[in-house]
Amino acid sequence: MSKTGKIAIAVLGFLLLGSTVFAEETESITEVMAELVLQIGIIIFAVRIGGRLVKKIGIPSVLGELLAGVIIGPYALGGIVLPGFPHGIFPLGSGTLAVSTELYSFATVASIILLFASGLETDLGLFLRYSVVGGVIGIGGVVFSFVLGDLVGVFLLHTSFTDPRCLFLGILSTATSVGITARILSDQKKMDSPEGVTILAAAVFDDVLGIIMLAVVLGIVAVMTGGSGTLTAGSILAIAGKAFGIWLGFTALGLIFSKKIANFLKFFKHSYDFSVLALGIALLLAGIFERQGLAMIIGAYIAGLSLSKTDIAAVIQERIHGLYEFFVPIFFAVMGMMVNVREIASAPVLIFGAVYTVVAILAKVIGCGGPALLMGFNGKGAMRIGTGMVPRGEVALIIAGIGLAAGVLDNQLFGVVILMTLITTLVAPPLLSVTLKIPGSGTRKPVKDDDTSTMVWEFPSDEIADLVVDTLLKDLRAEGFYVQMMNIDDGLSQARKDDIALSITEEESTVTVETAKGDMPFVKTAVYEVLLELSDAIDKLKASTDPAAMRREISNLDGRTDKELFTMLQPELISLDLKGETKDEIITEMVDLLAGQNKLLNRNEVLHDVLQREKTMSTGMQHGIALPHAKTDGVRSMSVAIGIKKDGVNFESLDGEKSRLFIMVVSPKKTSGPHIQFLAAIGAVLKDEGVREHIISADSRDDVITLLRNAKK
Amino acid sequence: MSKTGKIAIAVLGFLLLGSTVFAEETESITEVMAELVLQIGIIIFAVRIGGRLVKKIGIPSVLGELLAGVIIGPYALGGIVLPGFPHGIFPLGSGTLAVSTELYSFATVASIILLFASGLETDLGLFLRYSVVGGVIGIGGVVFSFVLGDLVGVFLLHTSFTDPRCLFLGILSTATSVGITARILSDQKKMDSPEGVTILAAAVFDDVLGIIMLAVVLGIVAVMTGGSGTLTAGSILAIAGKAFGIWLGFTALGLIFSKKIANFLKFFKHSYDFSVLALGIALLLAGIFERQGLAMIIGAYIAGLSLSKTDIAAVIQERIHGLYEFFVPIFFAVMGMMVNVREIASAPVLIFGAVYTVVAILAKVIGCGGPALLMGFNGKGAMRIGTGMVPRGEVALIIAGIGLAAGVLDNQLFGVVILMTLITTLVAPPLLSVTLKIPGSGTRKPVKDDDTSTMVWEFPSDEIADLVVDTLLKDLRAEGFYVQMMNIDDGLSQARKDDIALSITEEESTVTVETAKGDMPFVKTAVYEVLLELSDAIDKLKASTDPAAMRREISNLDGRTDKELFTMLQPELISLDLKGETKDEIITEMVDLLAGQNKLLNRNEVLHDVLQREKTMSTGMQHGIALPHAKTDGVRSMSVAIGIKKDGVNFESLDGEKSRLFIMVVSPKKTSGPHIQFLAAIGAVLKDEGVREHIISADSRDDVITLLRNAKK
Repeated sequence: MSKTGKIAIAVLGFLLLGSTVFAEETESITEVMAELVLQIGIIIFAVRIGGRLVKKIGIPSVLGELLAGVIIGPYALGGIVLPGFPHGIFPLGSGTLAVSTELYSFATVASIILLFASGLETDLGLFLRYSVVGGVIGIGGVVFSFVLGDLVGVFLLHTSFTDPRCLFLGILSTATSVGITARILSDQKKMDSPEGVTILAAAVFDDVLGIIMLAVVLGIVAVMTGGSGTLTAGSILAIAGKAFGIWLGFTALGLIFSKKIANFLKFFKHSYDFSVLALGIALLLAGIFERQGLAMIIGAYIAGLSLSKTDIAAVIQERIHGLYEFFVPIFFAVMGMMVNVREIASAPVLIFGAVYTVVAILAKVIGCGGPALLMGFNGKGAMRIGTGMVPRGEVALIIAGIGLAAGVLDNQLFGVVILMTLITTLVAPPLLSVTLKIPGSGTRKPVKDDDTSTMVWEFPSDEIADLVVDTLLKDLRAEGFYVQMMNIDDGLSQARKDDIALSITEEESTVTVETAKGDMPFVKTAVYEVLLELSDAIDKLKASTDPAAMRREISNLDGRTDKELFTMLQPELISLDLKGETKDEIITEMVDLLAGQNKLLNRNEVLHDVLQREKTMSTGMQHGIALPHAKTDGVRSMSVAIGIKKDGVNFESLDGEKSRLFIMVVSPKKTSGPHIQFLAAIGAVLKDEGVREHIISADSRDDVITLLRNAKK
Repeated sequence: MSKTGKIAIAVLGFLLLGSTVFAEETESITEVMAELVLQIGIIIFAVRIGGRLVKKIGIPSVLGELLAGVIIGPYALGGIVLPGFPHGIFPLGSGTLAVSTELYSFATVASIILLFASGLETDLGLFLRYSVVGGVIGIGGVVFSFVLGDLVGVFLLHTSFTDPRCLFLGILSTATSVGITARILSDQKKMDSPEGVTILAAAVFDDVLGIIMLAVVLGIVAVMTGGSGTLTAGSILAIAGKAFGIWLGFTALGLIFSKKIANFLKFFKHSYDFSVLALGIALLLAGIFERQGLAMIIGAYIAGLSLSKTDIAAVIQERIHGLYEFFVPIFFAVMGMMVNVREIASAPVLIFGAVYTVVAILAKVIGCGGPALLMGFNGKGAMRIGTGMVPRGEVALIIAGIGLAAGVLDNQLFGVVILMTLITTLVAPPLLSVTLKIPGSGTRKPVKDDDTSTMVWEFPSDEIADLVVDTLLKDLRAEGFYVQMMNIDDGLSQARKDDIALSITEEESTVTVETAKGDMPFVKTAVYEVLLELSDAIDKLKASTDPAAMRREISNLDGRTDKELFTMLQPELISLDLKGETKDEIITEMVDLLAGQNKLLNRNEVLHDVLQREKTMSTGMQHGIALPHAKTDGVRSMSVAIGIKKDGVNFESLDGEKSRLFIMVVSPKKTSGPHIQFLAAIGAVLKDEGVREHIISADSRDDVITLLRNAKK
């Protein structure tokens, strides 16, 4: 640490100590806000660190975020008394919640953003028409999980099937979270295998059915906890029908008016504006649904679903991603904070948790694997599909939060659900990996070419890779493909249409496209057209700007010159008599002049980059001047060499004249310094014929510098 | 509306009516959340609509957002009793706040994001070294505004200068908001005039000084409201010194460790991760500052300032922009909601407001214009600078909110401040416009070429424009320029280094660069190098992929074919005997074949686009096949024509063979349909020599279709 730093810390410590008297005087509302802001700040750090740590050992980051919440929460570290924090940094909330309502409200908005994004990604087309196989498997998994989950409650809590707690245990067990499954499929290049495609299709059914069943369960629970007496099977059916009807009605309205909604939103031209407004719709629907006794997330999901088929869906997803990254980890942390560690660490809770978890795993393996066996998959394929559907995730957590806030779940049952979420997400990846690694096809009938084919590309820069991927996705959408961001952090997208599926991974400047071998010609054609499209755009750009004309125009413009720039000129870097007879020889000679004065880190790299720049467009200007230059990693800091060749050399100059005066500028790529300013300044000075001719016929290197510094310009 | 839509609405209405019984049964916490979520949803819509409406009549959108808050707030529409809302949708808060603490907490986080972003944009380099003129003018404005603002309180409230209310009135009057000024300067092409540059430099001093003075004032107010008895001038100085010390200490620490902080953040590779973490630092510092009796926004500003010179500053700004767009308008709306309309509409308040506003305007005009007169500007220039500094904005609102929450400001004084903010922001633009329109220089000494010069570019697409601007800004940063986003909504950036300033506006695919005439050669050189850089990148892209080799590879790949695609073939769109003898003639003939069947909206446009696509890369394949195609706005839906020329035509094919079979595909740009799928499928089918030869020698158009549909592939 620098000395200044130490002094600053010392002074600051003194001032802080001396000023704690301020703290006691603040008003209550600002105290509440200061606490909240500190808490959110701490959560942001805790979740990122937790997420990163578990990811290192191959566990999905959401679990790290959840555990971070447990650790820093009011039942653990957050409850420890500290100076200035009489109840800890995360004091235990006073009501049913373990955290403050202010913090909980951020988690609530987070859950809405999460389900809105999830709805936005839902491929309703796939749900409605494509995969009978996916549908049957999805339904099998949801029904099995619900019934078995509920039955665990019936047996262990000794109560009836329609006990709200049992209904919650049932519904909590339904929602599969395939993010982690998609990651494993992609890692093992199985995204486009029959099992992979089926899992992703089944997951869509799982999502939609899960939401419908949640609506129905909440409808029933609301009436039951309202104490309206005993419910007959008939009245339960009526309530369920009503809840389903509300879901269906809003979904139908959303879809019917989706284009009108999108057009209204597009009226607010800026993409950030209409994306936030779209989220506003989700918030409004969420509020309305909650007031109707349904869950907010159902409204948010429907809002997303309605917009999912519109042309602004992709833009909205991208624009709200920053919000997602800020809010959603807060939600996981807050759910972790609700976990009362001491209450969970008891034999009954752990046994309940173990039973519930095992049942939850079996429910998906049997509920999805069974139908898979009947639908053309063999045992291997069925196991792959079953295990792929095992992980429960964010939606289970959200519903658990709803149950806790509504008082249906107590701390112990909440803990049981958290355990189930943790363990299913932990065991699914290794299980799936193992089943995927067993060699052989997972289907009984012969399938279309099962091999997947991979195409890897290295682009010149991240920006170009972005541009190529964006253009490709845009083209695929125009082609009728449904494009879905599977995992934004890993830059993993999937595009599907009928039975064609391709996954696109963008990692810095590398893009990988993966698809069935039979579809590779289509993919390559698409990429080929993207390349031509971009190259055409750049050509148009060049045509509309005409670099040569621009270069000429620049040479003729009057500009002002900052003579300060010429202080970096050194006599040792000037050659009054270059030997080279060709462009390449001159450039090599000047690079060696720089190398001779130890200006370069890597002589060959500099030479290559300067020649490369010449190839793009010659730096030979008018009136015998040439400015060979490059930004290159072969140099430590900006360096300038000057060379003179009295009889001149053909440098492919603008006016065809031979070049006699050469100024070479090389700068590091990232911190080039006044590279372009120097080029502009030297160009301006050398417009004066007198200066030019005097320099070319100069007798000494110092004269060259003096002439440049004293030029009138 | 469709019939289905009507039915859906009817059913839904019935279900909603029948299910309102649910609502009464919900728990308190979910009710609170539902209310909050509804409120945020409504605010999102109200502010966007309000912002848009006022912008239409030329008023900055922040005022529209503020007014939207007033209108929907608890003192106006939001307090109206509605069915299901016994206290209105925005019930009056129970404590010192007019809104719920949950909603207020979103406004608080918003204020932190706002000041964090503002710190991130601060050009500390400019503050520390560049403009003595800007410094003196900035200081003049701040000191004058503070003293005069405080004195208004002294006279009208009949109290002392150190009365907390007076101190707040003083500090509230200091903070200039130059966003609107920058917009006007840019509109009138005066951003780079001496006055424009000076205003923007002075605004930096204004920001930094305003924050320091706020720290000092809050320090004093905290002690005074703590009731520590009378304060002597000496003790006030001590407190002020301590507050200043804390500010200075944290700022120094932040700047000293800025690189280390940035490196720590970059450890979290993904840009969203480290950007949210950077915001986490702002939240932590905000919480710490509040607990030290200083304002949260000071901590947030320092966090931003510390990171402003690091290489991740620009990425953070971009990544948190979505958060900014979501949160900040909520802040303005909540401030509007705090305005008690009835209390303000009284003579004393209005008179106080008028006096305070007039003084606030004069304070900046005199406080900034006076020093300007002494620093080389003439009366005209001084007026321009003075009026440019008049608008107060977001920072004044935040400080007013702090004063209200802390109980220093009552509803009436809060209203006075809102009035001042509204009016200064409303009158400044026309005042500045008028002074700018008076012809002639604003300086007494001769200046560098005063003319600004403008370069306008039309790019082939928004994406390319983005790419060019991003690359240009990156290069300018490498060149040592400080690049600042002046107004994200309008895509307006400014880059400055020493006395070179340029502004860059990106509006869809149009980019405008504006700078002093003398600096135009530099700017054009920079843009020229960007063009070459991009063109080189695309060339590398082409080289690394080699389109011709790729095209050949595609022709040789085995792919599967969806015969469904061939159902769109029509005998009327087949010609068995093309007449053309050249590539262009063949293409024209086939376009006319499509036009003859009324498939085209604009025949010439289609022809142009197909020829253009040929120019990029010929669509002549191997074995006598050519696939001329284009995406074009000249066609309504995807259309295919087939043509045969038995003796063949030179089509610049891959294998040099003459082309005999032509399949033309044209599709609309946006919803092309299976354009590429069709190209890939037809290519696969025609790989079979038998199919190819049979088609070329077919006797009837129907045979061609039959042959294609029945091909084995």
